[in-house]
Amino acid sequence: MSHTYARIAELPAHEGQPVTVRAWVTHVRSSGKVAFAVLRDGTGVAQAVFVRAEVGPEVWERFKELTLETSVAITGAVRVDARAPGGVELGVTALEIIGASPIDYPIQPKEHGVDFLLDNRHFWLRSPRQRAIFAIRSEIEQAIHDFFYDRGFLRVDTPILTAAIGERSGLFSTAYFDEGTAYLAQTGQLYGEAAAAAFGKIYTFGPTFRAEKSKTRRHLTEFWMIEPEVAWNDSADNMRLQEDFVAFIVLRCVERRRKELEELGRDMAKLERITTPFHRLDYGDAVALVQQKGSDTKWGDDLGAEDEALIVEDYDKPVFVMNYPKEAKAFYMKENPDDPRTVLCDDLLAPEGYGEMIGGSQREDDYDKLLHRIREEGLDPSAYDWYLDLRKYGTFVHSGFGLGLERTVAWICGLPHIREVIAFPRMMNRLRP
Amino acid sequence: MSHTYARIAELPAHEGQPVTVRAWVTHVRSSGKVAFAVLRDGTGVAQAVFVRAEVGPEVWERFKELTLETSVAITGAVRVDARAPGGVELGVTALEIIGASPIDYPIQPKEHGVDFLLDNRHFWLRSPRQRAIFAIRSEIEQAIHDFFYDRGFLRVDTPILTAAIGERSGLFSTAYFDEGTAYLAQTGQLYGEAAAAAFGKIYTFGPTFRAEKSKTRRHLTEFWMIEPEVAWNDSADNMRLQEDFVAFIVLRCVERRRKELEELGRDMAKLERITTPFHRLDYGDAVALVQQKGSDTKWGDDLGAEDEALIVEDYDKPVFVMNYPKEAKAFYMKENPDDPRTVLCDDLLAPEGYGEMIGGSQREDDYDKLLHRIREEGLDPSAYDWYLDLRKYGTFVHSGFGLGLERTVAWICGLPHIREVIAFPRMMNRLRP
Repeated sequence: MSHTYARIAELPAHEGQPVTVRAWVTHVRSSGKVAFAVLRDGTGVAQAVFVRAEVGPEVWERFKELTLETSVAITGAVRVDARAPGGVELGVTALEIIGASPIDYPIQPKEHGVDFLLDNRHFWLRSPRQRAIFAIRSEIEQAIHDFFYDRGFLRVDTPILTAAIGERSGLFSTAYFDEGTAYLAQTGQLYGEAAAAAFGKIYTFGPTFRAEKSKTRRHLTEFWMIEPEVAWNDSADNMRLQEDFVAFIVLRCVERRRKELEELGRDMAKLERITTPFHRLDYGDAVALVQQKGSDTKWGDDLGAEDEALIVEDYDKPVFVMNYPKEAKAFYMKENPDDPRTVLCDDLLAPEGYGEMIGGSQREDDYDKLLHRIREEGLDPSAYDWYLDLRKYGTFVHSGFGLGLERTVAWICGLPHIREVIAFPRMMNRLRP
Repeated sequence: MSHTYARIAELPAHEGQPVTVRAWVTHVRSSGKVAFAVLRDGTGVAQAVFVRAEVGPEVWERFKELTLETSVAITGAVRVDARAPGGVELGVTALEIIGASPIDYPIQPKEHGVDFLLDNRHFWLRSPRQRAIFAIRSEIEQAIHDFFYDRGFLRVDTPILTAAIGERSGLFSTAYFDEGTAYLAQTGQLYGEAAAAAFGKIYTFGPTFRAEKSKTRRHLTEFWMIEPEVAWNDSADNMRLQEDFVAFIVLRCVERRRKELEELGRDMAKLERITTPFHRLDYGDAVALVQQKGSDTKWGDDLGAEDEALIVEDYDKPVFVMNYPKEAKAFYMKENPDDPRTVLCDDLLAPEGYGEMIGGSQREDDYDKLLHRIREEGLDPSAYDWYLDLRKYGTFVHSGFGLGLERTVAWICGLPHIREVIAFPRMMNRLRP
């Protein structure tokens, strides 16, 4: 028996040759003379064709044992056929059952509730739809690395366990030897700023945590953030970097993951429209716009999800809202010299109501103003001594932003809920599997 | 005044033109007529030349304010000159001081103790040596992503907050809403196995945690791991993937980071020798070898750091030690059919005494044997129900490994202590900055 093993994605290269595929069975059907098993191995889908008169009685009988998710090694000649599931067929000569799959396999070809699916996430991931999502997520992640690598950024891995913190509420904490309490990082930014002074252009790529009791479709307790920080970039430079970055990621998916996006039913025209420049809207104009559309939001308030939806409905590309009031934003954002009630910052709102995908700002580089803001927020300055140091010795203009990976993936995939775009989502009521 | 801003790495492209560089001062010297300031901006190093007769008295006086780590904007014409620090000079026409740097800047050009340097890690990162280390680390990280991307692996981000655990001791824990206690992941492997059944070939890239009171030069409480997992790979396939992977990373650094490696004084010949295949040594032969060299280690013991050093001293490439006794290794490793006292696993030992850089294994795919091992280890099978499910429904041969990023970077850089190869190291007595 031939044992040239091949993964399904490689089968077209073996056309006409006998190979052995190891895979899982996702579907079977049989007439009296011919039987079919659809196979998946994570790299693709193929159809195995059993001709009764050719495979012999033993293999024909064994075919009947193929239940959903049985794992098999199937040997046969490769035929490329556009009509077959996956576009490729195996003319079976041998069938080995590797792992049986009892008929109570949890995920059956019927509708299941999302809680049930999340309880069985280890199996749910095997569905074609999930495979498409994770191929796109993986493509986006590689695109992010390529974007920064090609532009001379150094990647810097900032700590998860921290004493200094970027925000005050919603912290997970753990005992840390004799050092007291450590908090799980909500952001790597403060460390990124120190690294930007050392290396010029840096980015982080890691998990961040929020111990918040929110149950919306846009919140997870553990999610991934990408946080570039660039020495000598001002807020305008920062927004240009953001739009170049987002347009690069979307184009990459359009070019290399069209098949998967189409599998998810994504409207490709909407993605193809995402080119620079993006529209820029001052916070004050944004408030006027949403008020005009009936919102009660007043100058000084942060913009909520409903306001964001009202703003983006007029645009088919992401929209920057710039220079929010100081009190709506974090302490480290630089005061706007043209209007000291506001800070030099931006939120980048995704189109189609996907909400904020990026928050960015120029950082306060004035020692006294920063110290004042830290105190004003009721934070302990001694926890920020090293952060203040960056302003004490050779302070520098610098800016950066944070891209929420899951929100970006959800938008590009066109999915309403971010819980589906991370392999094992963590929410306030979900820590398993 | 011209304001074509350029980063130092870009200066050669502006030869003969006036540009403005924003950077930090690392060194100054002056004669009565000419003065020099060495600048760094994270992308490179350049020398600014002040000719008294040309810059005028105001700039000449301002030069005297340039202390270590003063931030400046310096305008001048670019001259490429191999003799200058960084190989490029600016013939200064204008000097703006952006941020003064008081003379008590902590890191002075003298010897400092490592604890002091770690306390001032935010400044220590600015030294040329640290810049070289992090350029190499960043290159290694990109090489890792490129290696897997080019081979059709999907990247999967496994959870940090977990209920199921891979090992029992040394866990950080945090309260998790009404779900009880969450543990910080020591490995993503168990989740990686579920993803491999779904996507075929996957890898993880994330932080992992050990709450261990170890103070060796090879331990951190928070470090980064890369964990590929491949459906249908057996232990031999797994080792081939490991050696291809490691050789790829080293070659990439040799090709693209020679300058930084030479700055660190790395012996390039030792890296250029790292080609496949690597030597493979059975555990039993490894024990015989170290006994012959005077070790007290007996069959059944795990190999300690001293044994590892004895093993690698005969080789100038990484060495695989294969098939350890069951009791020395984790519960999820597959029993060796040729010798059931042992498991199908490997440790890949770095040359030059850098110790274990990879631990890998074929995973136990037999439901009953795995359940038995879970019970034998005193673990709670109910925490592993989803993991056992992978063996219950369509079990599959699969293998994977974990590469410790910091150990790999330390080896490639030729540095004795891994605390220097992560931006903000976390050790049992260090949580700051």
